[in-house]
Amino acid sequence: MKITDLGKKAHKAKYFLQNLTSDKKNQALQTMADYLITNTSYILLKNQLDVTSMKDKNATSALIDRMILTEDRIKQMADGLRGIAILSDPIGNILETINRPNGLVITKVSVPIGVIGIIYEARPNVTSDATGLCLKTGNVVILRGGSEAINSNKAIVSVLNKALDSLGFLEGCIQLVKDTSREVAKDMMTCNEYIDLLIPRGGASLIDAVIKNATVPVIETGVGNCHVYVDEFANQKQAIDIIINGKTQRPAVCNATETILINESIAFEFLPKIYEALKAHQVEIRGCKATKKIIPQVIDAIEQDWYTEYLDLIIACKVVGDVKDAINHINKYNSKHSESIITENKEAASLFTKKVDAATVYVNASTRFTDGSEFGFGAEIGISTQMLHARGPMGLRELTSYKYIVMGNGQIR
Amino acid sequence: MKITDLGKKAHKAKYFLQNLTSDKKNQALQTMADYLITNTSYILLKNQLDVTSMKDKNATSALIDRMILTEDRIKQMADGLRGIAILSDPIGNILETINRPNGLVITKVSVPIGVIGIIYEARPNVTSDATGLCLKTGNVVILRGGSEAINSNKAIVSVLNKALDSLGFLEGCIQLVKDTSREVAKDMMTCNEYIDLLIPRGGASLIDAVIKNATVPVIETGVGNCHVYVDEFANQKQAIDIIINGKTQRPAVCNATETILINESIAFEFLPKIYEALKAHQVEIRGCKATKKIIPQVIDAIEQDWYTEYLDLIIACKVVGDVKDAINHINKYNSKHSESIITENKEAASLFTKKVDAATVYVNASTRFTDGSEFGFGAEIGISTQMLHARGPMGLRELTSYKYIVMGNGQIR
Repeated sequence: MKITDLGKKAHKAKYFLQNLTSDKKNQALQTMADYLITNTSYILLKNQLDVTSMKDKNATSALIDRMILTEDRIKQMADGLRGIAILSDPIGNILETINRPNGLVITKVSVPIGVIGIIYEARPNVTSDATGLCLKTGNVVILRGGSEAINSNKAIVSVLNKALDSLGFLEGCIQLVKDTSREVAKDMMTCNEYIDLLIPRGGASLIDAVIKNATVPVIETGVGNCHVYVDEFANQKQAIDIIINGKTQRPAVCNATETILINESIAFEFLPKIYEALKAHQVEIRGCKATKKIIPQVIDAIEQDWYTEYLDLIIACKVVGDVKDAINHINKYNSKHSESIITENKEAASLFTKKVDAATVYVNASTRFTDGSEFGFGAEIGISTQMLHARGPMGLRELTSYKYIVMGNGQIR
Repeated sequence: MKITDLGKKAHKAKYFLQNLTSDKKNQALQTMADYLITNTSYILLKNQLDVTSMKDKNATSALIDRMILTEDRIKQMADGLRGIAILSDPIGNILETINRPNGLVITKVSVPIGVIGIIYEARPNVTSDATGLCLKTGNVVILRGGSEAINSNKAIVSVLNKALDSLGFLEGCIQLVKDTSREVAKDMMTCNEYIDLLIPRGGASLIDAVIKNATVPVIETGVGNCHVYVDEFANQKQAIDIIINGKTQRPAVCNATETILINESIAFEFLPKIYEALKAHQVEIRGCKATKKIIPQVIDAIEQDWYTEYLDLIIACKVVGDVKDAINHINKYNSKHSESIITENKEAASLFTKKVDAATVYVNASTRFTDGSEFGFGAEIGISTQMLHARGPMGLRELTSYKYIVMGNGQIR
């Protein structure tokens, strides 16, 4: 099936979805959750096909672990959908009212974006999570998961669609691209007629390919080269806790800390302490020349290290002159995701939050908080690292657009 | 000079501009206006080169008129900049504050987008207008005007830059692409490293070329295939005034009315009246079969007419069964710009405003009101017809992004 065929169906479904009541959408989310639970064994069976095929291809155990579904993981997917159901509806809200001198009353109302394409890698839970977020926001979703997960994704989408069928939903609200070839992915990226937004979720190379090939509007997500700057006025105990948390609590995620910048006036005192703490957590350190002078055991950092999102128990470390140097380093090398300063000094904090160019800038907190749930959004479709439409954690509200409704009584210009 | 060279300068200038005080930006706008006035004769001299060259190429008088600058038009450009100076600053505003249970205080603050590229056609006044809007919002602007206006644009940009020089601004805040070849335009469209947003302003083919070639995020502007639907419960006198205004007050602009849809139950009564009124304004009518039955003199409409933005004294006319038919026609053929229903019936109005998919939906008013000034935004960079970031008239606020500033006291996950 061609993307344009999926697109045509999506186009019809979009007008069906966009005016559904909140009750109807929430009922659908609850029913989808019920169906996931009652069809658990079917989904596990299909998932097993993907797992076996990955094992045959000698995939790493980390990759296989991301792929494996269990009864408990399916329950989590169902709970995710129920969690979305109880959030308030972001559609149809009056965002603003403008009364014009000529008597026109302009109302700005939130509306769905339309048709959202999600291009993602392995994890099958994304299939259910993204679908739930799109349904709640009245958006049609076209899912294009990785080829390794195709059997799991087919099973999940067919179960979710059966749930919608049982409620009399129009066909096409949730669609899966079953042909996982690159050609079809490229067709999807240029299907401007039917797709309103593409969200790539995955590694840097996937996101890069989407940006390079897409003519459909894209929201860039995820790559996080996040820094912690330890100022001369830092509470050093706090700095150690925040760095260890940022680097080690979940090293493979985009809001993990990748580089630490240390103010030179505290480097002699602080570096040995953080070195010991990181070593105790099996973290490899790649240091600049000044770092090496103080801690000769660290590995030499090369230019590429400052750009690298390790997603691993590796951290880069640089000694900087002051907060301004730290800001310049960050603005040069970061991916505009999450940056933190550790300081008790208000001027340094203020300068840092003003001048650092990133979706989220922290004072005395871990970069790990850049997350829809941690921000209180209830759910999240990704972390935007671009300037347009949405920046940082994207919850339900970030999956909406708006229209202006203008009430007149015969006004002409 | 290559686009990357302009980009590198822009990148530096972006960090200079983004934290300027409102006073400094407003002073710059006033100084830019002063410089335009004092350099009027220089700009007119250079403009004359473009006008002569267009005449040599036998350009139409309409095109030449768009190009010609006069003392009065330059004064209008200066007044435009002063008008932007007195608007309130959209940067640095607290959009939202979130207090989290763990003590984190999250503030969402408006920030500039960064570097904005504008690709536009003839009119030289866009050079000054777009520059003013970008400067007020702390954005660097890279302008790429049409080749026909290159001498005028060079003159205007050099005058504006002299104004900024006199205030000690960093070089690079306002840049003009002097090589107007298509290759350089394409380089601009793929310069993701240095350009954060592209706004094409011009005809459908220009916008189409930008969408097809750009990997930089684009805001699609301008194409307006706008409809007026005259319901069975319309005030018919009002309907005639609104249609005549929408079609004839300024036919060449994007919010002009291009197609009228007439409810069949009033067609016999209304069509002869609107026909006479349109004829009196020299408007050519292209009608569907049902229209022709009532008014045999009209020209046959073909399928292509329903898609066409005439930008001329031509209007398409179709008889429809009811408001639902009107909505379906509009959602199939429109460009998501501006649509109007004329009715005294609340249900019809409510259905129309809910279901019509467009940036602006009117009840009993002319489509001509889709405009930044008419909405009270004070100024406008274009009308967005896409779903992302901004929809409808884009004023200063729509040229901003945001960042989250998170204040903690040692929080870790």
